[in-house]
Amino acid sequence: MISVVILGTGNLAQHLCQTFSKTDSIQLIQVYGRNQGNLRWFSSYTEVCSEPKDIAKADVYLIAVSDQAIEEVSHHLLDKNGVVAHTSGATPINVLSAKNRGVFYPLQTFTKGKSVDFDSIPICLESQSEESLGVLQDLAQAISSKVHLIDTEQRRQLHLAAVFANNFTNYLYGIGEAICHRNKISFDLLKPLIQETSNKITSLTPKEAQTGPARRGDEKSMNQHLSLISDPSEQEIYRLLSKAIKTKYEKEL
Amino acid sequence: MISVVILGTGNLAQHLCQTFSKTDSIQLIQVYGRNQGNLRWFSSYTEVCSEPKDIAKADVYLIAVSDQAIEEVSHHLLDKNGVVAHTSGATPINVLSAKNRGVFYPLQTFTKGKSVDFDSIPICLESQSEESLGVLQDLAQAISSKVHLIDTEQRRQLHLAAVFANNFTNYLYGIGEAICHRNKISFDLLKPLIQETSNKITSLTPKEAQTGPARRGDEKSMNQHLSLISDPSEQEIYRLLSKAIKTKYEKEL
Repeated sequence: MISVVILGTGNLAQHLCQTFSKTDSIQLIQVYGRNQGNLRWFSSYTEVCSEPKDIAKADVYLIAVSDQAIEEVSHHLLDKNGVVAHTSGATPINVLSAKNRGVFYPLQTFTKGKSVDFDSIPICLESQSEESLGVLQDLAQAISSKVHLIDTEQRRQLHLAAVFANNFTNYLYGIGEAICHRNKISFDLLKPLIQETSNKITSLTPKEAQTGPARRGDEKSMNQHLSLISDPSEQEIYRLLSKAIKTKYEKEL
Repeated sequence: MISVVILGTGNLAQHLCQTFSKTDSIQLIQVYGRNQGNLRWFSSYTEVCSEPKDIAKADVYLIAVSDQAIEEVSHHLLDKNGVVAHTSGATPINVLSAKNRGVFYPLQTFTKGKSVDFDSIPICLESQSEESLGVLQDLAQAISSKVHLIDTEQRRQLHLAAVFANNFTNYLYGIGEAICHRNKISFDLLKPLIQETSNKITSLTPKEAQTGPARRGDEKSMNQHLSLISDPSEQEIYRLLSKAIKTKYEKEL
C-alpha cells in the first residue's frame, strides 16, 4: 500500500484524487490546498488541509499546482522523508527542494468533469535515486500501464510536442468551427473528420496520412482557398502551414 | 432499388464500392475506369468497364475522380438520363455537363485499406432539380444517417474548413512526432493526448477546450519553448499559432 498526499486542488488534482481513491494499492491520505472552497470537493474522498504544518506523513507527495507555484509549495515539504514529485511537463526536477525528489508527469489534457481512463495515459517519471524511482514506479504502475522514464530535457521537449499536438491542433479546430459558423453550416459536419484524423495515426504515420492541396502541390486549389478567407490571421496560418507541407513533400512529387 | 455506376477507381471509389455492395437498397451495377489494373480490384464486387461507350444505364452516376478530371469524365455521360453527381468538396456543380446534375460529397478522409463506417459520415448533397435531389437523398440515406443539403459556396467553405481540421492538424501531429524522434522519445507517448484532443470537442467547443501557454498568455513558457526549437519552420509555426491564440484570448485574461 502506497500512501499519497496531493498538493493542489485543480483539474489534475481532481482526476488524480478520483483515480487514487478507486485503486486498492493506493491510499490517498490527504489533499492540501490553500483555498478552502476548492478543498470542499475533495473532502468526500479524503482528509483535506490548508495549513502546511498539518500536512501528513506519506510515501509520496504529488504537487499538482501551476508551474510557477511548484517551488513555493515544495518548501512546505522540506522535512518530509517521502518522495516529493511535481506533475509538470515544463518544469525541471531541480526546482524541488526536498530530500527525495521526483517527477510524475501524466501526459494528457484534463477537462473538469470529464473522466479519463488513466490506464491509457502515459506517465513520465524522473527521479534522482533508485529508491525514489521505485516508489514512483509502483505508484504509476498502479494506475497506468504506460509508465516511462523521461529526463528533464526530454520532458521539456515532450511538453513542446504536446503543444503542437494538442493546443495548436485545438486552435485549428476552432478555425474550422468559425468557418462553419460564418457560412451557416453546423460544426457537427466536421466532427467525424476530426475524429478520423486522430484515429488515422494509430495505423499510419502522420507523414503517410498527409493529404490535401499542399501535399499535392496543387497551387490552384490553394489560391482558391486563400480567396475564400477574409480573416488575415487565418490567411497567414493557411499560407504558412501550406508552405511547410509543400516544402516537406515537394521532393516526392 | 437504386442502380449506381461509379466512375473512378481511387480511394473513395473503393470505399463507396464496398459500402454500396453491402447495402440492400443499392445495386452497384458497374465501375468505370481507364486503368485496367486499377479496375481489377473492383471486379470481385461488380462489372467493370474501361470504354466510355460501355457505361451502363443507371439511376445515379457517381464521379469519384480527381478534381481536374471531373469535367472530362462527365462528358462521357451527356446522353444519360440518370443523375450525374461528382463527389468533390472544392468543385462547383456546374462543371458537370449532364442533364441531371448533382453533388454527393462525403466529408471524410479515406485511407486505402482502412474501412470506415459510412453511417457516421456526413454526406453533403446539392442538386438543381427536386427530382434529382430526391434520388441523391435516397442514395445517401441508404448509407448514412447524416445527410445535409449544402450549396456550392457552402461546400467550398466546408472544404476549406476541412483543410484546417484535417490536413493542417495532421501536419502538426507530424511536428510532434519529429520532436519526439529527435529526442529519442516514442511518438506513442503523444497518441493518447491526440485522441483526447479530438474527443474533447464532442463535449466542449474548441474555444472552451483551449489550454496551453498561449491561452494563458504565459510569455515565459512560450519563450522557453521557442528556445527548444531549432527548425526555422517549426519556430515560425509556433510563433504564429501562439500569437493567434494569445490575441483571441487576451481580452479574457
